[in-house]
Amino acid sequence: MRVGDRQLRTIWLAEDGWSVNIIDQTRLPHDLHIWRLVDLDGACRAIRDMQVRGAPLIGAAAAYGVCLALRDESSPAALDRAVTALQQTRPTAINLRWALDQMRAALAGLAPSAWPEAAYARAAEICEEDVAGNRALGQHGLAVLRGLAQGKQTPLRVLTHCNAGWLATVDWGTALAPVYAAHQEGLPVEVWVSETRPRNQGLLTAWELAQYGIPHTVVADNAAGHLMQKGLVDVCITGTDRTTARGDVCNKIGTYLKALAAHASGVPFYAGVPASSIDWTLEDGAQIPIEERAASEVTSVAGRAPAGDVQVVSLTTSPAANPAFDVTPAALVTGLITERGVCAPAELRRLYGRA
Amino acid sequence: MRVGDRQLRTIWLAEDGWSVNIIDQTRLPHDLHIWRLVDLDGACRAIRDMQVRGAPLIGAAAAYGVCLALRDESSPAALDRAVTALQQTRPTAINLRWALDQMRAALAGLAPSAWPEAAYARAAEICEEDVAGNRALGQHGLAVLRGLAQGKQTPLRVLTHCNAGWLATVDWGTALAPVYAAHQEGLPVEVWVSETRPRNQGLLTAWELAQYGIPHTVVADNAAGHLMQKGLVDVCITGTDRTTARGDVCNKIGTYLKALAAHASGVPFYAGVPASSIDWTLEDGAQIPIEERAASEVTSVAGRAPAGDVQVVSLTTSPAANPAFDVTPAALVTGLITERGVCAPAELRRLYGRA
Repeated sequence: MRVGDRQLRTIWLAEDGWSVNIIDQTRLPHDLHIWRLVDLDGACRAIRDMQVRGAPLIGAAAAYGVCLALRDESSPAALDRAVTALQQTRPTAINLRWALDQMRAALAGLAPSAWPEAAYARAAEICEEDVAGNRALGQHGLAVLRGLAQGKQTPLRVLTHCNAGWLATVDWGTALAPVYAAHQEGLPVEVWVSETRPRNQGLLTAWELAQYGIPHTVVADNAAGHLMQKGLVDVCITGTDRTTARGDVCNKIGTYLKALAAHASGVPFYAGVPASSIDWTLEDGAQIPIEERAASEVTSVAGRAPAGDVQVVSLTTSPAANPAFDVTPAALVTGLITERGVCAPAELRRLYGRA
Repeated sequence: MRVGDRQLRTIWLAEDGWSVNIIDQTRLPHDLHIWRLVDLDGACRAIRDMQVRGAPLIGAAAAYGVCLALRDESSPAALDRAVTALQQTRPTAINLRWALDQMRAALAGLAPSAWPEAAYARAAEICEEDVAGNRALGQHGLAVLRGLAQGKQTPLRVLTHCNAGWLATVDWGTALAPVYAAHQEGLPVEVWVSETRPRNQGLLTAWELAQYGIPHTVVADNAAGHLMQKGLVDVCITGTDRTTARGDVCNKIGTYLKALAAHASGVPFYAGVPASSIDWTLEDGAQIPIEERAASEVTSVAGRAPAGDVQVVSLTTSPAANPAFDVTPAALVTGLITERGVCAPAELRRLYGRA
């Protein structure tokens, strides 16, 4: 996607052919900074500290983490260590497990000496599959937006939460893929951006949209219910970190509150769901482990000081809790937008031939 | 209430007998700073810029604003100017209109030369009535908490939003009055404090509770739904800036989302409602004017920098909207805790002899 006059993805192989470049998202929206991953530790740290974030991108970064580990030592023990270390970086997004399973499968039956090359090939494929899948997801979502826009004389108003844009994937995004598709096709959209405390990933969404000149307005997370009560939102679209087989959507903390408000006001609520984020082993979203992150993410915040430098300021000295995800029950979800089409939660199995 | 080893109210007559001291709440929780109001302009600015905030305290500050105006010029024209200017400072909290009506009524029939003395007397009464009313409200709320705590082996977990503690009133608070009463009476309570973006008044609540050693945990506004889904909240109590005759509760933006989540999880939802915040002229909360405040409150935040100074840092350069209140329909409200007792929304009229 576009940043100023550059075309960028969130993760790509460096010119040396082995190290991995990422956009360091902890420095956005204030600074665009490219960071280089050179070993397993760096990949683990990048995921845990959210230099890379967003379920699909976490998967891609984990895939490259395996590559970097095998480049250092291509053995079954090294592979096990890498998979274990990467799996433990973050507990909620299922894409992490999915990507690690994909990597193991790609290496199965090959001699360890052939693993590095096969790993890099599979990691690159995972990235390309993500991009292609999100583009397809965007087209299916565009059809939803077109339907909702029919007869409207004013732009379609989309509310999103967190960042499920291209920064959360390798490219294109999930929740925002339909928005980018609409923008490209000339369907007027305006986006309400929920800032998404504590880490303010909504501001990454705003930064993305600003690059394309897509009209958007940031609001406090608290504002979503009011906007929907007042008829100012036509549709909610969020991403998902894990979707269960019955269509419960686990996503960034606060998503559930938006879904409740959408349901109460008759606003359709969709999630952008790549296949890699579906957990076919779970029915009930309440069983998904919810990551508890550091209290400091709540009690402090980074921003640009008047002098121009980015500072972390402390908001309170009180104790804090920081659950990072919540679960929206399928009953509150109008539809799941996938690479294969759009379906009601109850139809997800059938869509994937698992009925 | 207690701050360290001092006993303070939020507003009090200075030793000179005419100027008015307030705690400058824009500097909390970082610094405790007393500010002096000496004229109408200062009183208007204090309310508009939220040096004083919270519906009951806004009323008390407006009452003293009239006093300061009349001290400068005691004439019908000056009174009209003062009432108009104060009324325009903030549109949502009905206590402002209530207090100005009280002041006009106290002056009616007196010669303008007698107004300043009568105004100061009535303003002082309004403050004392607020304190006594909140104390009574706290006792009625305590009975609710005792009922909910019955049979529990662990502390009662109260979730609150924004600050409806003593800082939002002259003393004691509304939503927090029952919590303080419980603490005094030895009923164990723990408080989930929703930070309340964009202005983080939840952090004032945390600061208040810390002074009394009442266990509390700050969470992002987004976390409320998850906490209730997980059974970690026994009761929600918020304040109100305006309650309609049928019991719709207009309060700080985000209150509605908490009420939706409470309803969905079967958690009782109460508002602390002083009589001064009831608007008997309105039935439907949707008719309440919702204040739109500056976008900068969303796009920037104040905190303590590593060097110890308080800095305002910019979070985003994107446009923002900042509706400051929302309306929780009476159907989501379990009960209203008033000075006269606790009632279901539909019983509010009867409780006040207006059935």
